[in-house]
Amino acid sequence: MTSLEDLPLRSDLRGLTPYGAPQLHVPVTLNVNENTHTIPEPVALDIVSNLARALLTINRYPDREFSELRDRLAGYLGHGLTRENIWAANGSNEVLQHILQAFGGPGRSLLGFVPTYSMYSILAAGTGTRWIAADRDADFELTPATAADWVTKTQPDIVFLCSPNNPTGTPLSLETIEAVYAASSGIVVVDEAYAEFGARGTPSALSLLPGRERLLVSRTMSKAFAFAGARVGYLAADPAVTDALRLVRLPYHLSALTQAAANAALAHSAEMLAMVDDIRDQRDRLVTELTRLGYAPHRSGSNFVLFGGVENPRATFDALLADGVLIRDVGIPGHLRVSAGTEAETSAFLDALARLEPPVGPVPTNAIESIN
Amino acid sequence: MTSLEDLPLRSDLRGLTPYGAPQLHVPVTLNVNENTHTIPEPVALDIVSNLARALLTINRYPDREFSELRDRLAGYLGHGLTRENIWAANGSNEVLQHILQAFGGPGRSLLGFVPTYSMYSILAAGTGTRWIAADRDADFELTPATAADWVTKTQPDIVFLCSPNNPTGTPLSLETIEAVYAASSGIVVVDEAYAEFGARGTPSALSLLPGRERLLVSRTMSKAFAFAGARVGYLAADPAVTDALRLVRLPYHLSALTQAAANAALAHSAEMLAMVDDIRDQRDRLVTELTRLGYAPHRSGSNFVLFGGVENPRATFDALLADGVLIRDVGIPGHLRVSAGTEAETSAFLDALARLEPPVGPVPTNAIESIN
Repeated sequence: MTSLEDLPLRSDLRGLTPYGAPQLHVPVTLNVNENTHTIPEPVALDIVSNLARALLTINRYPDREFSELRDRLAGYLGHGLTRENIWAANGSNEVLQHILQAFGGPGRSLLGFVPTYSMYSILAAGTGTRWIAADRDADFELTPATAADWVTKTQPDIVFLCSPNNPTGTPLSLETIEAVYAASSGIVVVDEAYAEFGARGTPSALSLLPGRERLLVSRTMSKAFAFAGARVGYLAADPAVTDALRLVRLPYHLSALTQAAANAALAHSAEMLAMVDDIRDQRDRLVTELTRLGYAPHRSGSNFVLFGGVENPRATFDALLADGVLIRDVGIPGHLRVSAGTEAETSAFLDALARLEPPVGPVPTNAIESIN
Repeated sequence: MTSLEDLPLRSDLRGLTPYGAPQLHVPVTLNVNENTHTIPEPVALDIVSNLARALLTINRYPDREFSELRDRLAGYLGHGLTRENIWAANGSNEVLQHILQAFGGPGRSLLGFVPTYSMYSILAAGTGTRWIAADRDADFELTPATAADWVTKTQPDIVFLCSPNNPTGTPLSLETIEAVYAASSGIVVVDEAYAEFGARGTPSALSLLPGRERLLVSRTMSKAFAFAGARVGYLAADPAVTDALRLVRLPYHLSALTQAAANAALAHSAEMLAMVDDIRDQRDRLVTELTRLGYAPHRSGSNFVLFGGVENPRATFDALLADGVLIRDVGIPGHLRVSAGTEAETSAFLDALARLEPPVGPVPTNAIESIN
């Protein structure tokens, strides 16, 4: 049998394994920060009818400029944005890949503050961009001074700021974003995949766009919109940025079905986002109850909570899985991550956790600061 | 206003313009080799119901391994293929990009025989792969000796063979593919995007797969399946090849909607392909009628015809467009390309063309041999 070693694979790919959390079928799945609420039936009906309409011309290539989708995304984001400010792709991973293809690549570098979204370094490797892993402050926070110092010190071509940060949940202040932008002469991307779950009144980096032509704010419909299966990521930036991304995207990269489904969902954004409040409540409940159980949850502006004080993360993960609850071991010693589910799912997780051995108490922050 | 020059764009992208034929709305659109037949209503209804089912869990990430889709594609292709042999992505462009990411890239090279599908060199540039443009024989043919000589001479890491070739329509013999494979120590891709339109009994490169672990045969649902809007490309190869591609794909690259739509379409492949015979008839009619009108059509195993003898391609293109018929100027002097449409569309094109000045007669082949 032929194996990978028998093929002329690129040498930098040898020995790697594919990215991805296990896709297991268990009763309570809280491992990949999905929105566990299904979409409202009236919205689903509208999406189906839009999809049926799209099928009438599915023999033709889709609108390469996805104009209606860009209009609707601009309308959803507000902040005076228009179609010209918007880019979209098959999930925010592809949006980020387009950014690296246009502004990164061989001879260029990408700075991120670890621990952060693990796809950043994978996307860097996949595009030949040098990955620079910078450290965070205590408790995974990122002050303006720390962030700007790293930028000044390393002069990256691109900076990715995850706001709030995955997998830690840590909110990021606009002051840090401003400081990074001021210190940088390159592209600054604020990944707001989870922005809608922030505390009420949390300002978006979108408010910083005017006058900052190197600032890009990426979003996704996967989380707040409960649309992970549809694969729609997007960003807002200066129109010149979208002109640049147009040079690297594959033609017709967004299918007519993707465009039709997203357009219908965006026409119902209020209903689609109705469950965000519930999820925020369950997230806050997780923080409260994990603390009560003796764990050390980190503050979160997201739909998930990272908690420390786990003596043996693998054993706890396995015990929960045996109980039908799937969460995530993100590789941070003494920690596990759990998504905020429905009230019932969150209860199932907390109940299963309460049945296990009590925790050992919080891991000192200085022991985990330098984890990638 | 910020312009592209104000941004830190990669230097190799400066001055480029985005790929893409104009997307104009005209009565008769025969420019991008779409299948101009809409899909049959009973099939459309099944696709809609599969899409509706997919929406029930659209809040969850899709099956990252697209297992059902791979099963169905293997079943459609036959040749003893199974799920393990199949890869798929958002259009065959993305399939080809995955191949270049895994086996090409900086320090590696891709050989193609020009004129050929213009995305090949664009994909090479986008992945940092060196593009080698090799010449064809007279009349855009490609003999085993010519092709193998180029491979021996240039030692490419990857060869793309377009079979039948776009934009010329030229069928490619299995002997040429075998000769290229034997001469090469790298990856050999046979792009069979238009294979279903070949003359009855034309063998597929799929028949060459056994024992050739470096041979990849790519296909698309865009053409024969009338599914261009759904963006589904795929390939068949040794399972080790699909393991390699898994290392470079973005996780969850195929949406739940794409998978649902393609699965339903594949369950009806006989009905979906029912229009292929009509299209083949119109293609043959184009060759006959273009000859009768004094043009010099090239032989085609595809759903389009490239024809020479056009004194001023731009003027003919514009005159046809003014008459509501959009075809393609592919940049080959003295030539234009037209897709085979429905009988009515094909008639509209031929009638509009007949109303123009008569052609100048065929361009001597030796004048066009070295066009890229």
